[in-house]
Amino acid sequence: MEEAEKTFDNEQYRKTYWHTCSHILAQALTRLYPGVKLAIGPSIDEGFYYDVEFPESFSQENLKDVEKEMRKICKEKNQLERFELSREEAKELMKDQPYKLELIDGIPEGDAISFYRQGEFTDLCAGPHLDATNQVNGAGLKLTSCTGAYWRGDEHNKMLTRIYGIGFPTKEELTEYVTAKEEAKKRDHNKIGRELEYFTTVDYIGQGLPIILPKGARVIQTLQRWVEDVEQKRGYLLTKTPYMAKRDLYKISGHWDHYRSGMFILGDPDDESAECYALRPMTCPFQYQVFLNRERSYRDLPMRLNETSTLFRNEDSGEMHGLIRVRQFTISEGHLIIRPDQLEEEFKGCLDLAKYVLDTVGLLDRCTFRFSQWDPENKNNKYEGTPEQWEEAQAAMARILDDLGVKYTVGIDEAAFYGPKLDIQFRNVYGKEDTIVTIQIDMLLAARFGMVYTGDDGSKKTPYIIHRTSLGCYERTLAYLLETYAGSLPTWLAPEQVRVLSIKDSVVDYAQGVVDKLCALGVRAESDFSANTLGYKVRSGQKAKVPYMIIIGEKDLENQTVSVRYRNGEDLGAMTLDAFAEIIKQVIDNKEKK
Amino acid sequence: MEEAEKTFDNEQYRKTYWHTCSHILAQALTRLYPGVKLAIGPSIDEGFYYDVEFPESFSQENLKDVEKEMRKICKEKNQLERFELSREEAKELMKDQPYKLELIDGIPEGDAISFYRQGEFTDLCAGPHLDATNQVNGAGLKLTSCTGAYWRGDEHNKMLTRIYGIGFPTKEELTEYVTAKEEAKKRDHNKIGRELEYFTTVDYIGQGLPIILPKGARVIQTLQRWVEDVEQKRGYLLTKTPYMAKRDLYKISGHWDHYRSGMFILGDPDDESAECYALRPMTCPFQYQVFLNRERSYRDLPMRLNETSTLFRNEDSGEMHGLIRVRQFTISEGHLIIRPDQLEEEFKGCLDLAKYVLDTVGLLDRCTFRFSQWDPENKNNKYEGTPEQWEEAQAAMARILDDLGVKYTVGIDEAAFYGPKLDIQFRNVYGKEDTIVTIQIDMLLAARFGMVYTGDDGSKKTPYIIHRTSLGCYERTLAYLLETYAGSLPTWLAPEQVRVLSIKDSVVDYAQGVVDKLCALGVRAESDFSANTLGYKVRSGQKAKVPYMIIIGEKDLENQTVSVRYRNGEDLGAMTLDAFAEIIKQVIDNKEKK
Repeated sequence: MEEAEKTFDNEQYRKTYWHTCSHILAQALTRLYPGVKLAIGPSIDEGFYYDVEFPESFSQENLKDVEKEMRKICKEKNQLERFELSREEAKELMKDQPYKLELIDGIPEGDAISFYRQGEFTDLCAGPHLDATNQVNGAGLKLTSCTGAYWRGDEHNKMLTRIYGIGFPTKEELTEYVTAKEEAKKRDHNKIGRELEYFTTVDYIGQGLPIILPKGARVIQTLQRWVEDVEQKRGYLLTKTPYMAKRDLYKISGHWDHYRSGMFILGDPDDESAECYALRPMTCPFQYQVFLNRERSYRDLPMRLNETSTLFRNEDSGEMHGLIRVRQFTISEGHLIIRPDQLEEEFKGCLDLAKYVLDTVGLLDRCTFRFSQWDPENKNNKYEGTPEQWEEAQAAMARILDDLGVKYTVGIDEAAFYGPKLDIQFRNVYGKEDTIVTIQIDMLLAARFGMVYTGDDGSKKTPYIIHRTSLGCYERTLAYLLETYAGSLPTWLAPEQVRVLSIKDSVVDYAQGVVDKLCALGVRAESDFSANTLGYKVRSGQKAKVPYMIIIGEKDLENQTVSVRYRNGEDLGAMTLDAFAEIIKQVIDNKEKK
Repeated sequence: MEEAEKTFDNEQYRKTYWHTCSHILAQALTRLYPGVKLAIGPSIDEGFYYDVEFPESFSQENLKDVEKEMRKICKEKNQLERFELSREEAKELMKDQPYKLELIDGIPEGDAISFYRQGEFTDLCAGPHLDATNQVNGAGLKLTSCTGAYWRGDEHNKMLTRIYGIGFPTKEELTEYVTAKEEAKKRDHNKIGRELEYFTTVDYIGQGLPIILPKGARVIQTLQRWVEDVEQKRGYLLTKTPYMAKRDLYKISGHWDHYRSGMFILGDPDDESAECYALRPMTCPFQYQVFLNRERSYRDLPMRLNETSTLFRNEDSGEMHGLIRVRQFTISEGHLIIRPDQLEEEFKGCLDLAKYVLDTVGLLDRCTFRFSQWDPENKNNKYEGTPEQWEEAQAAMARILDDLGVKYTVGIDEAAFYGPKLDIQFRNVYGKEDTIVTIQIDMLLAARFGMVYTGDDGSKKTPYIIHRTSLGCYERTLAYLLETYAGSLPTWLAPEQVRVLSIKDSVVDYAQGVVDKLCALGVRAESDFSANTLGYKVRSGQKAKVPYMIIIGEKDLENQTVSVRYRNGEDLGAMTLDAFAEIIKQVIDNKEKK
C-alpha cells in the first residue's frame, strides 16, 4: 500500500489497521490469561473483535486491563512477519489451540497455511497486516464490549467470549467516535420512543407488532390527516380497501409467485380445494379495483389513488427493530394509473410531493436517492417481464431522473418484481440504511388485471402504473423523526404542545381556564397542577420534551397574563393569553421546525 | 279467536290469515296445473309460500293467472273444515302426492293426522285456519315471486318451485306494502351504494371484504375525523394497536376458549410447538397494554382509550350482506378503565356520547335499546365468571339504565362472554335488525391481565372496564346512512358537496375559479364543464345526489355571481360566491341534516 493510501478514508487500510488491532488484542490476552484459547479475530464494518475461550471467568471490568496491555504492545514496535508452514508443522505449532487446529483442518489441500508473528505471539492468519505494532496508536484504541458468541455461530457449539474493539490513528478521532456513539444511543428511537411512551412491545402479542401508545398515535394521526389533505389537494382520490384477499388475487398480481414467503397466509396455501386467504403485503391489486369498477376513457387519466393503508410482511423475528422494521405497518400508499404520455409529468409530481412532505417534517436533508434496477442475472425467478420491457422501463426512469437532475446511486437487483424504483433512503442513528419513500414505474401489472382505457382514437389501450408513497410508513417515519429531533418533535407534531403549571393552589382555576381556552383553539394543552415543587414540574415537562410550558403564579392571575418558557430553557416572559395563542398558532400552522 | 282479535296487529291472526292464503294458492295451482305435486305451504314473517313440483314449466309470468284463480276462490266462500284420518286412510287420500306421503310418514305414532278441506281441495295440515276462503280479501292478495327451493332445504333433494305471496285485509294495505317494498329496494344500500360508487365487491378478493371506493372512503374519513375529535374533547386518549397477536394473548383474554371459531388463525392452532398468530376480533386486550405500560394509581382513573380500530371476524359466507355484515370492519372502538365508584358516571358518559353521535348523523330516532344478558342455562361454555359476578354486573347495569330512564327490551343469551351489554339496535330497509352501537360492563377481564391500580389507601385494586363504541362500525353505519337518506347524505357528509356546471365554454375560466375558491375553503367542490347539454348535466348531478349545483352562465360571469340550486330542485337564485360560501359553510359546520 502506498503511503498516500494509508488513510482511514481508504477502506482497505482501515480494515488492515483493525485486523492488526485484533492481533494486538490476542497478544495481550495470551499474556494476561495464560492458557486462553483463541478462535477467530476479524476486522468488521466498525472495528474488530476476537472470539476466545478463557481459562477463568472474564467480564466487562477486565477490559481496562487488557486495553492497558494492548497500549504497551503498541509501543513495543514489534514487526509483523508473515511465514508459511506445511499442514503438519502448522498443527504442531498450534497444538495447544484446539480452535486453530479446527481452522487448519478446514483449509483446502494446496492452499497456503500462513502465520503472522509479532514478538513472542504468533497467530494463524491470511493477513494482510500493518508492518509493526507501533503503527497502531494505543491512545486511539478502545475495547467497547464483551458478549457471548457460539463457536462458528452455531448454537450447538461451545459459547465463547467475544471482545469488541475499535481503533483510530488519533485519540481525537476516538473521542469523536465515542461521543457520536453516545449521542446515537440517546437518540435511538427504540430507547427514547419507549421512555417517552410513544410505543411499547409485549411478548405475548409478538415481535414486530408494536403497540402505539397515545403519544405516538397522536403524532401519526396528525401526520396522516396532513398527508391525506395534501394529497387530496393534488387531485388524489382516497380509497379504503380490504387487508386480505383470496389467494386468487395474488395469483393474478404475481405476488403468489414472487412474494409468497413474505406473506401471512390464512389456510393451507397448497390445498386448492379449500378457500385460502392471505394478508396483503401491498395495496396495488386492491386499489386497481377502483379503476376496474367501470369503463374508463383517456379523459379519466391520470387517476391518482391514495390510501392510508395497513400492510403485513412476514419477516424474520431477527429482522425486527423498534418501529423501523415491523410486521404490520401503515403507509401513505398510492397508485397512479396513467397514459404512457403522462409518465414523466406524473412521476415528477410524485417526486415533488415526496420531497415537499419530507422537507416539511425535516427529514429531506438527510435523504439520499437510489435508482433500484433489476438484475438480469438473478436466478431466483424474482422478476416478471422480458428484458425489452425492463430496458424500456429503466430507460424511461433514467431519462426522467436525469431531466429532473436527481443525483442517485444505482442499486442492482433492488427493483420490485414488476419494475424499477426510485428509492429515497434514510439512515438511522446507527448508520443502518432503509427505504423511507419509493416511487416505481410499472409497465406490466395493468395487463395482468385486464386494465384498459379507450384512447382518443377509440381503441383499447393498456395504462402504465406508478406505485408510490409520499411520507412512507408512519411507524418508520415516526422512528426517524424521534431520532432526528432526539424526541423534541416540532411543535405541530408534538403530542403535548403546551403544559400549564401552577405555582400555588390559588391559581388553579385561572390556570385551568388557560388550558381550556388553548384546547378550544385546537392546541394540545395539558396541565400539571400537582402538589410537587415548581422545579420538579418544570423538569418533568422538559423530560417529556413539551415545547411550551406556561407557568402560572399569583402575579399572572393578578395581571391576567401567562409566563411562557420554551423547552430549551428560553424565557419568553409574561404575556396575555391572546398573545401566546398568536405565537403558538403561527408555529403550528406554519409547521415550523421548532 | 274473538272477533276483536281478528286484526293484523295480532300476530296469531296474521299468521292464520296467511296460512289460509297458502291453501288458496295450492287450490288454485291444482285447478290450473292438474298433476301438480304439493310439498309444504307455511306462513312466514311476511306472507306465505308454497313449494310445489309442476308437471310442466312454470315461470314468473304465470303468477298473474294463479292470482286471478285465487281471487275467484276467495269469492267462492268455501268453508275450511278440519278432519282427522288414520295413517292408512291418510295415505290412501294422498296417494298421488309423494311429498305429502313423506310428511305423513314423519308424523310420530299417536299424533293426530289432520286435514283441511275447502271445496274440492283437501290438504294435509295441522292448522289453524280462517273459517272460509271468503274471509281472505282477494283484492289484498299478491304473489310476489317464484324461486327454486330444495325439498326439505337439502341440496341433495329435488329442486321444487317456491311461490311467495302476501295478503292484506284491504287493497289499500296491499298497495301501501308494495310501495314500501319498492321504496326499501330503492334505499337498499347494497343496491344504491354500488350504483353511486360508494363500494363494490370483487369475486377474486372475497365475500365480506368490500372495496370502499373514493366516495365511500371520503364519507368514512369525514366521520372518523369527527368521531376522533369528539372523543378527544371528552378526554379519550387515542391508541393504534396491532391487528394480530400470538395465540398466547387470546388465551389470557379468553377469546381462544370462547371465540376461536370466529377468528382468522395464521398457523396451526393445535400445534403448540410452532408460533401461531390470529387476527383480532376485538381491540380490548391490545388496548389494555396502554394501562399496563406502567404503574397506575387511583388518580390515573378513569383512563378513557379510543381507537379507529380494524377487526376481523370469520363469519360464514352466507351471513355476508353489503356493508352491514362483513369479515373486516373498522370501528370507533374504546375501553374505559375505571374505579368501581366511577361506573355509573362513566357508563352515562358513554351512553351520552353514543346518543350525541347517532343523533348528529340522524340515526338516533330509529334506534332501539336492548339490555343483553347472559343465559345461566347456556350449555356451550359461552360465559366466563360465576353466577354471583354476573348478577352483580347485570344488577349494576339495570340500576344505571333505570336511573337514566332508558327504555329497553331484554335479550337473553345475548351478552358478551365477559359481561352484560347495552346494545343499540337498528333495522335495515328490509326490517333486519343488527347492533349499531354497544356499551358493555366487564368486571372479569382486568384480573386476567393482572391489571391493578394503587387505591387511595395504598392497596392494590382491580379496575372495572367498560367496552364501548360511539358510532359503531364505519362500514355498517355508512350502509344505514345510505338507506336512511336514500343516498342523499347530509351536505357535511356528502363526498361531493357542490358541483359547478358551465353553460358555455366562455364561462369555464370563471367557473373553474369558483371551484378553486370553494376547495380552498375546504368545501368538496367538483366541476362538470363537459360539452353535454345543461339538462343532461343537471340530471347527472341529481342522479349523483350532489347537494348543491352551481350553474354558471354568461350573466353570472358578467355580474360575478353564481346561480345555485339544491338537489331537491329548489332554486336558490343568483348570489355572490361569498354569500353562497356563507350558506354552505354554515350547513357543513352545523352538520345540518340537509
